[in-house]
Amino acid sequence: MALGTAQQYLDRVKNHRPTVYLRGKKVEDILLNPVTKSAVDAMAKVYDLSLEDSYRTVMTATSHLTGESINRNVHINRSVDDLYNRQEMALLTSQKLGTCNYRCVGCDGFNAVAATTWEVDRDTGTKYYPRLMDYLGYVQQEDLAVSGAMTDTKGDRSKRPLQQDPDCYVHVSERRKDGIIVRGAKQHQSGAYVADETLVIPLLSTTKSEEDYALSFAVSNGTKGITYIAQYNPYSAERELEEDTHYLGNPIFGQRETSLMVFDDVFVPWERVFLCGEVDYARRLVYRFARLHRMSCGGACKVGFADLIIGATCLLAEYTGIEKASHVMEKLTQMVAMRDISSACAVAAAYKGREEPIGSGIWTPDEVLGNAAKYNTAGAFWEIMKWAGDIGGGAITTICHEKDLENPETKAYIEKYMKTGNATAAERLRMLKFLQNWTAGLHGPSTWHGAGSIVSQLITIFNDTDWESKKQMAKELAGLKG
Amino acid sequence: MALGTAQQYLDRVKNHRPTVYLRGKKVEDILLNPVTKSAVDAMAKVYDLSLEDSYRTVMTATSHLTGESINRNVHINRSVDDLYNRQEMALLTSQKLGTCNYRCVGCDGFNAVAATTWEVDRDTGTKYYPRLMDYLGYVQQEDLAVSGAMTDTKGDRSKRPLQQDPDCYVHVSERRKDGIIVRGAKQHQSGAYVADETLVIPLLSTTKSEEDYALSFAVSNGTKGITYIAQYNPYSAERELEEDTHYLGNPIFGQRETSLMVFDDVFVPWERVFLCGEVDYARRLVYRFARLHRMSCGGACKVGFADLIIGATCLLAEYTGIEKASHVMEKLTQMVAMRDISSACAVAAAYKGREEPIGSGIWTPDEVLGNAAKYNTAGAFWEIMKWAGDIGGGAITTICHEKDLENPETKAYIEKYMKTGNATAAERLRMLKFLQNWTAGLHGPSTWHGAGSIVSQLITIFNDTDWESKKQMAKELAGLKG
Amino acid sequence: MALGTAQQYLDRVKNHRPTVYLRGKKVEDILLNPVTKSAVDAMAKVYDLSLEDSYRTVMTATSHLTGESINRNVHINRSVDDLYNRQEMALLTSQKLGTCNYRCVGCDGFNAVAATTWEVDRDTGTKYYPRLMDYLGYVQQEDLAVSGAMTDTKGDRSKRPLQQDPDCYVHVSERRKDGIIVRGAKQHQSGAYVADETLVIPLLSTTKSEEDYALSFAVSNGTKGITYIAQYNPYSAERELEEDTHYLGNPIFGQRETSLMVFDDVFVPWERVFLCGEVDYARRLVYRFARLHRMSCGGACKVGFADLIIGATCLLAEYTGIEKASHVMEKLTQMVAMRDISSACAVAAAYKGREEPIGSGIWTPDEVLGNAAKYNTAGAFWEIMKWAGDIGGGAITTICHEKDLENPETKAYIEKYMKTGNATAAERLRMLKFLQNWTAGLHGPSTWHGAGSIVSQLITIFNDTDWESKKQMAKELAGLKG
Amino acid sequence: MALGTAQQYLDRVKNHRPTVYLRGKKVEDILLNPVTKSAVDAMAKVYDLSLEDSYRTVMTATSHLTGESINRNVHINRSVDDLYNRQEMALLTSQKLGTCNYRCVGCDGFNAVAATTWEVDRDTGTKYYPRLMDYLGYVQQEDLAVSGAMTDTKGDRSKRPLQQDPDCYVHVSERRKDGIIVRGAKQHQSGAYVADETLVIPLLSTTKSEEDYALSFAVSNGTKGITYIAQYNPYSAERELEEDTHYLGNPIFGQRETSLMVFDDVFVPWERVFLCGEVDYARRLVYRFARLHRMSCGGACKVGFADLIIGATCLLAEYTGIEKASHVMEKLTQMVAMRDISSACAVAAAYKGREEPIGSGIWTPDEVLGNAAKYNTAGAFWEIMKWAGDIGGGAITTICHEKDLENPETKAYIEKYMKTGNATAAERLRMLKFLQNWTAGLHGPSTWHGAGSIVSQLITIFNDTDWESKKQMAKELAGLKG
Repeated sequence: MALGTAQQYLDRVKNHRPTVYLRGKKVEDILLNPVTKSAVDAMAKVYDLSLEDSYRTVMTATSHLTGESINRNVHINRSVDDLYNRQEMALLTSQKLGTCNYRCVGCDGFNAVAATTWEVDRDTGTKYYPRLMDYLGYVQQEDLAVSGAMTDTKGDRSKRPLQQDPDCYVHVSERRKDGIIVRGAKQHQSGAYVADETLVIPLLSTTKSEEDYALSFAVSNGTKGITYIAQYNPYSAERELEEDTHYLGNPIFGQRETSLMVFDDVFVPWERVFLCGEVDYARRLVYRFARLHRMSCGGACKVGFADLIIGATCLLAEYTGIEKASHVMEKLTQMVAMRDISSACAVAAAYKGREEPIGSGIWTPDEVLGNAAKYNTAGAFWEIMKWAGDIGGGAITTICHEKDLENPETKAYIEKYMKTGNATAAERLRMLKFLQNWTAGLHGPSTWHGAGSIVSQLITIFNDTDWESKKQMAKELAGLKG
Repeated sequence: MALGTAQQYLDRVKNHRPTVYLRGKKVEDILLNPVTKSAVDAMAKVYDLSLEDSYRTVMTATSHLTGESINRNVHINRSVDDLYNRQEMALLTSQKLGTCNYRCVGCDGFNAVAATTWEVDRDTGTKYYPRLMDYLGYVQQEDLAVSGAMTDTKGDRSKRPLQQDPDCYVHVSERRKDGIIVRGAKQHQSGAYVADETLVIPLLSTTKSEEDYALSFAVSNGTKGITYIAQYNPYSAERELEEDTHYLGNPIFGQRETSLMVFDDVFVPWERVFLCGEVDYARRLVYRFARLHRMSCGGACKVGFADLIIGATCLLAEYTGIEKASHVMEKLTQMVAMRDISSACAVAAAYKGREEPIGSGIWTPDEVLGNAAKYNTAGAFWEIMKWAGDIGGGAITTICHEKDLENPETKAYIEKYMKTGNATAAERLRMLKFLQNWTAGLHGPSTWHGAGSIVSQLITIFNDTDWESKKQMAKELAGLKG
Repeated sequence: MALGTAQQYLDRVKNHRPTVYLRGKKVEDILLNPVTKSAVDAMAKVYDLSLEDSYRTVMTATSHLTGESINRNVHINRSVDDLYNRQEMALLTSQKLGTCNYRCVGCDGFNAVAATTWEVDRDTGTKYYPRLMDYLGYVQQEDLAVSGAMTDTKGDRSKRPLQQDPDCYVHVSERRKDGIIVRGAKQHQSGAYVADETLVIPLLSTTKSEEDYALSFAVSNGTKGITYIAQYNPYSAERELEEDTHYLGNPIFGQRETSLMVFDDVFVPWERVFLCGEVDYARRLVYRFARLHRMSCGGACKVGFADLIIGATCLLAEYTGIEKASHVMEKLTQMVAMRDISSACAVAAAYKGREEPIGSGIWTPDEVLGNAAKYNTAGAFWEIMKWAGDIGGGAITTICHEKDLENPETKAYIEKYMKTGNATAAERLRMLKFLQNWTAGLHGPSTWHGAGSIVSQLITIFNDTDWESKKQMAKELAGLKG
Repeated sequence: MALGTAQQYLDRVKNHRPTVYLRGKKVEDILLNPVTKSAVDAMAKVYDLSLEDSYRTVMTATSHLTGESINRNVHINRSVDDLYNRQEMALLTSQKLGTCNYRCVGCDGFNAVAATTWEVDRDTGTKYYPRLMDYLGYVQQEDLAVSGAMTDTKGDRSKRPLQQDPDCYVHVSERRKDGIIVRGAKQHQSGAYVADETLVIPLLSTTKSEEDYALSFAVSNGTKGITYIAQYNPYSAERELEEDTHYLGNPIFGQRETSLMVFDDVFVPWERVFLCGEVDYARRLVYRFARLHRMSCGGACKVGFADLIIGATCLLAEYTGIEKASHVMEKLTQMVAMRDISSACAVAAAYKGREEPIGSGIWTPDEVLGNAAKYNTAGAFWEIMKWAGDIGGGAITTICHEKDLENPETKAYIEKYMKTGNATAAERLRMLKFLQNWTAGLHGPSTWHGAGSIVSQLITIFNDTDWESKKQMAKELAGLKG
C-alpha cells in the first residue's frame, strides 16, 4: 500500500491498547480521552496531508528500498533535495497542526540509525543495517506511525549511569538468545502512546563499560512492560473540562502531548535491535540525530509555529485598528525577519548537506547550520512571543470564556465591549484565545528545550568550528609570523 | 479601628453579593467558587501582612487626616520615605502572594486623584479635594479594600469616544441633582469583584467636548447596575477542576484574576464624584497615576515575582545538580542583575520624588524613573522567564500530575524516575509545577501590559526628556556656536 | 586576455590621474599617497587572488559572452552556482583583505543593470541591453576594475529632487546628439578613485516628471568634470603619519577608503548610457541591486571580517591564558554562531535564487533572505565587536606604540610588562593593534550602513512578506471562517 | 587655600617633569605635546568647574578635617548626600569634558583606603588611618590633583604573583627604616602623568605569603624611578598631526589618555604608605573601591557621555530632516531610557548607601546597585553607539576633512553637497566629526573595561545576593516544607 490513510491509522491505533496514566488514573481509551485524543487527531491529520496533491513533493518520497512512493516520515534522505523537502515537511505540518508532527523524531531517528548501523557494519562486520532495512521496509509498506525516544531521565546529571540507579538511563538488563530485556524510562516522549511503533535511540555518548547503554531498538505500541505516564498542565485541565473543543486555543490539536515512557523489563527480539554494546558509535548516532533534528525542529517546525503567531498577531492588529502604527509594522516585520533567519539556516543546512558516511547513500545536513537554526530559534521564539503579546494586548490573558458570549445575561455586554471597528466580539475573542495558546502557555520552555537547549547547540558549534583557520587569517593580515 | 483584619474583610465581602459571571454562568458565591476565591484569599493575606510586626514600616503609615496608624494601601504619600515604603510594600506583597495585591491600583489611584483634585480646586474653586478626603477618611477608618479601575474598552483605537459607540469609554450619561448616571465598562480589572470599593479614574486625556469623559468617582461593590464578567483561561480551568489547591502551581493565590466591569446606568451620588467635566485635568490625573504605578508595579511588584522565579530556578538547579555549572551561575546572576536594575529604578524614582503640586503636601515619584522601571521590567521579565525555563528544564512543561505519585500503580515509577541526586520526586514535581506557573502561563503578556505596555513608557520618557540641554552640551563640546 | 594581473592594473591606474582631494589638498599621485595607496593595494590583491589555483572556482567564472574564463567581479550570474560562488568570493576577499573588495558594488551593479535593461528592452523596445553587453564585453576582455556608484547626497531627505537643489541627486542636465551631460554627486564611494571605471546606478525609485533622474551610465576614471573628495578620519591621519605601514592595525589594506564623487557637467557618450528617462524601471534596478548586494555584503563580506575578529580574539584569549574560561568559550562560540547565521542567510539566498526576469538568463537571489542576511549582520557585527572588546581587554585601546618596543629606553619595560605566559610583548602588541582596527574604529557604523541600514531591510522584508497566507493559516487553525 | 584654580594647577604641573614616552620618543614637555596636553587641559577644566557658583553643591564639599570648603575630588564621603553628589560630579564632568575627570579614580581610591585603614587600625592596632588623614589634609589644603592606580599588568592570568615574574604585580621589593622600595607597573593609568600625585591601591585579593603585594601608597609625580609609557592609537596620530585642535572630534579634551606607569625601584617614605603586608584587608579595599567606582564610573560618568551622544544624534536627525520619523524618535527615546536606567542605579546606590565600617564615619554605596549600574552601562553603551551610528548615518565615517571646506578648489562642492535643508555643510561636518569621536573610536572597549568588565560585576552580584531568602520565598509559596 505504501501511502496509508488516516482511517487505516485509526483502525490500528484502537487496537494498540497502551497502558497510559493521566492525572492519577488509567486512560481507558486514548481515542476518547480528550487529552490523548488531540494527539491521535494530529497523527491522523499528517496522514491526510500526505494524500493531498498539492503537498505531494513535500510529504512523500521515493523509497530507496522499493522505488514506491512512500510517506516522507519513514524515508531515508538520499539527496540534497530530500533534506530540503524534509525541512519543508516540518514547516508544513507545523503550519497545519500548530503542534507536533508526532512522527518527526522517528523520521530523523531512522536516518541517524541508518547511517550509524551502516558504519558499524562496515567497521565491525555486524549486520545491523540489513536488519534495520528489513524493519524499515515493513514500516514503509504499512506506513506506520513511528515515534522516536531519546531523552533518558538522567537522575543526578553529574553522574554516569553506573554511578547511580542504573535505570536512570535505558539499558539492557538481560541478553537472551531470542532478544534482550530492557529497563529504564524515556521522558518528554511526544506522541509515543498514539504511535504504532517507537524507535529508541541513546542520549549518552557511551564509553567503555557502558556497553549496556549503547542501545537502539524498536518496540510496538502495546508491548508488554511499557507504561506511559502522560504530562499534565493547565491546558490539559482545560481540555478535560471543556465539553466542546472549539472553545480551546488550538481546538483540535492542542499544544503538545508527551509522556514518561517506562520500560519495565520489556522484551525486544533481536530483529528489532539496531545497536547493542558498540559504545564507540552511540556518540555518532546522537550527533547525526541532533544535526538532522535541529534543522527540522529548530529551523522549520518552529518557523511554522511562528507563521501562525505572526498571522494571528497581524489579524489582532487589524481588529483593533493599530496595524498602520509604525511601531506595530516594525515589530511585525522583525518577527518575520527572525522567522526568515531561522528558516534560512535550515535551508542552508539542507543545501550544504552531503552523503555521510561516504558510500552509505544517506545524506545529512551541514554540521553547524542545523545547530545555528535551533540556536537562533530558541531566542527568537521568546522574542516573537513577546511582540505578539505586545501587539495582541493584555486581553490575551484577561478575556472571558466564549460561553459568556452565548449566555443571554452577558451576551450583549460582550458583543458591545469586545467588538472593535474591524471585528465582532466573536472574531476577536476567538483570535485572542488562539494567541493565548501561543503566548501564555507551554510554548516558551517547550520550544527552548525541544531538540536540545542552547548549551548543546553551543557545544556542537564550538566543536565543529575550525578555529585554527580563523586564527591563521588574523595573523596573516596582521603581519604576524607563524 | 484603622487597621483591619482579614476576618473583618471576609465578613464584609460575603455581604457584597456582586454580580459575577464566569465561563457562561453566574457565580453564586465568590467565596466558594475556586477561581474567585483565590482573589479573596490574596486580599485577606494582605490584611494579615499589615498586622505583622516585622512588616509594620512597610505595610502601615500614619494618616495625615487623623494621625492614626493606617494601612499603607489607603495612604496618601507625604514624603520620600512614604514613596520608598510604597514600593517596598509592592515588593513584599508580590514575594508573599505571587499575584496581585489587589489594593495596589486603588492606592496609586487615591494619590493621583488627591493631587489632581487639590489642583482643580485651587485653580477653579471646586470642592473635590475635601470631598475626596471625607471619603478617604471613611475608607481609612474601616480599612476598606479599594480597587482601582482605569482601562476603558476603547473599541476602535483610532477614534475618539464621540466618534464611535460612546460607551466604549466610561462616561456620564446623565447628571442629576443628587448624583450622576454612569455608562461604559472598564477591562482588565484586577480583583474588582472582591474589593469593598472601586475608585474609577479616566484613561483618556480628554479635550473640549469630551466633558462627560473627564470623570472620576467611587462605587461600592454590589452597587446596582454593575456586572463583572471574569477572565477565563487554562489556569482557571485547572483551578475549577482540581479538588485540592495544593496541586496547583501557586496553590492558594493563583496567577491574577481580572474581569470586565460593566457600568450599566449606575447611579453615583455627588459625594463619590471626584472629577466631572474638567477636561484639562484628566491628562494630569492619568500622568500622575502612571508615574506612581509604573514605579510600584514595574519596579517593585514584578521584582517580587522575579525573586520567586529566581528562587525556584535556583532550587531546581540544585535538585538536578547543575548549580555549579558556569553557564547556570551566570544566567542566575543575570536574572538577579535584571531584577536589581528594575528595583534600582523604583528606589531612585522614590528618592527623587517631590511634592507635586507644590503646596499640596502630596508626594509623587520622579517623572522619568518610574517609567524607566516599568520599561526595563517589561523586557527583563521575558528574559527572566526564558532563563528560568532554560535552567528549570523541559520538565517544566512535561511533568505529570502529582496524583500520579499517589496512584499505587504509578507511584514507584514516578518516585524512581523523577528523583535526582538532591531531591525526591515529590520535591521536584512541586517545584517544577511552581515554575510552570511562572514560565508557562499568563505572566509574560500580563507583566508586559500591566501599568501600560512599553510604547506608553517610551512616549512618557520622550515627553519628559530635556532634549535641548543635551543638544546644547554636544554643541558646546564640539565647538559649534548657537 | 580575460584574466588580468595586478601589474596590468597598476599600469593602468597610474595613467588615470583622477582629481582627488584629501585633507584640503590635491593628491598628486594616488599610488604614492599612503591613504589612497591602501585602496590601490587592495584592488591589486584581488587580481592576485583571481590567479591563484585554489581560488579559481570562487574568483573566476565563464563569460556568457565569450565562453572564456573571466574574473567573477565582471560576471553576470547565470545559475544558482554562480550566486553561491558570488557570495563565496565576498567571503574570501574579506578574509584576505580585511577591507573592501572595491569591485564588489560594480559587480552587483552590472547584474542589476543587466536584468533591468533586458526588461526595459523587452517592454519598450529600447536597445540598452546589447549596449550594456558591448560595454561588459570590453570590461571582461580587459578585466577592468569597475566600481559602482549609488548613494546620492540627498540634501533634505523629506524632499524629492525637484523640490530642492536639483543636484542633490545625480541627473541629466542636458541631452545631446552624442551623449548626455550629468550633474550631481555620489557619496560613500568605496574605491572609486582607484577603479578603472565606475558604473553609476540610481538610488531613487523615480516617478513621472523625474525622467532626468532615472539614469544609469558608466564613466572612466579620469573623465573630465569628475572630482573625488576623499574621506578623512583618525585612521587616515595615522596612515599619513606613520612612515612604515607595518605599525598599523590592518597594515597594507586599512579600513575602507571612500570619497564624495562629484559630477560637474560630465559628458557621457550614449554608448555608456544604460537607462535614461524610464522612470518605472529605476525602482526595479534598485531592488535587484539591493537583493544581490545585501547577500554579498551582509551575508558574506562582513562574515569574512567576523572571521578575522574571531581569530584575533581567540589568539588574545590564548595569549593571556583565559581561553579555557567558560564565559570566554561561550562568548567566542556565540560570535561564531552569529557569523554562521548570517552566512546561512546568504547561502540560502543563493540557493533559493532564480532566473529573473524569466527568459533573461540572469539569476538573482531570493527576495527576502539577502535582506535577512544584512539585517542579522547589522546587529551581529556590533555584538561581535563588543565581545571581541570584552575578551581582548582594555589594552585594545590603551596599548602604546610598537616603537616603544624598539626604543632602548623603554624596550625592557614593554617586553617585561606586556608579555604574558603565552606571548611575547611583540606578538601581543601586534594582535592588540589588529583588534583595535576592528573594535575601536570605523567598522561599527560602516558595517551598519553598508548595503543600507536596517530600516531599508525591514521595509523590503515587509513588502516581500506574504501576510495574507499567514493570517489565513491562523484563522484556519483557530476555527475562524473567512 | 582649599579650593585651587586651574592656574595654580598649571603652575605645579610644569614643574613635575615626569618621564613620559610616546610613540617611541620622550615627551619633552607635557604641556606642549598635543596628546599629553589634552589631559592637562581636562584637569584644568575640572578646577574651573569647581569654582563656578552653579556647580558648587556638586563640585565642592566640606572637609571633615578642617570644616573648610574643599574640592569634592579629595573628599571623604560622610553621608548619603555626599554619595549622591559624588555621582552627580561624575555626571557633570563627563558632560563638560567628554573625557575623564582624571581625579575620579583617586577620589574613590581615597575613600576605599580611608575605610580600610580605619578598619585595619581598629583590628590590628596599626596607625595607617591618621597617617592617611595627614596626607589627605595636605592634599585638601593644596587642592592637589591625585590620580589613582590599580590595574597591575598581571602577566599570565592563571598564575599568582609568586608563581611568575614577581613584578607582574606592584609590590614591595625592599623594606627600609625610612620607607619601602616598590617595583612593578600599573597599566591603563588615566591621566597619571598630568596629576600632582598618584594613590596606588592593590588589584589583587592577597592571601598569606603575598604580604609584599598587600600594598597601598602615594607618590608624587616626578618621583625618581617612575616612567610613563603613553597609549597610542589613531586618535593620538590625528591629534599629533593636526595643527589646530578645532578640527578634532572632541577638540580640546580628546578621548582619554592613559599610560603604563612603571615603578622601577621607587622609594616611598613610610608617611606615604597606607597598607603594607596586611593580606586580609586588600580584598576589602578592592571591593570598597569597586563599589564606589562602579557607581561613579558606570552609573554617572558614562551617562554623561551618553548625554553628549544623544544630543549630537538628535542634532544630526534634525539636520537631515528625519527627526520626526517614528523609528528615529523611538531609537532616540530608547537611548535616553538606557541612560536613565544606568543613572537610576547610581542614584539608588547612593541613596541606599550607609556608614561602612560602622563607626568610621565613612559612607559607601549599596553593595549591589553600583555593580548593577556598571553592568547595565556596559551593554547599553554599545547599544547607544549603535543607534547613534544608525541615525547619524554612514557619513559619520565617510566625511572628508573640514579643510576641504576651506580649500577654494573644493569649498563649493562641499558646501553644496554636504548641506541639508536644516544645516550648513560646516555645521553638519562638525557634528558628524563629533559623533565620529564617539561611535567610531575607542569608547566601545574603553567603556566596557573601565571600572571592570562585566564578569567582575556578575561575580560581585553573585557574591552579594541573598540566594537563600529567594529560595525560601519560592518554597513557602509553592507549599514545600523545609
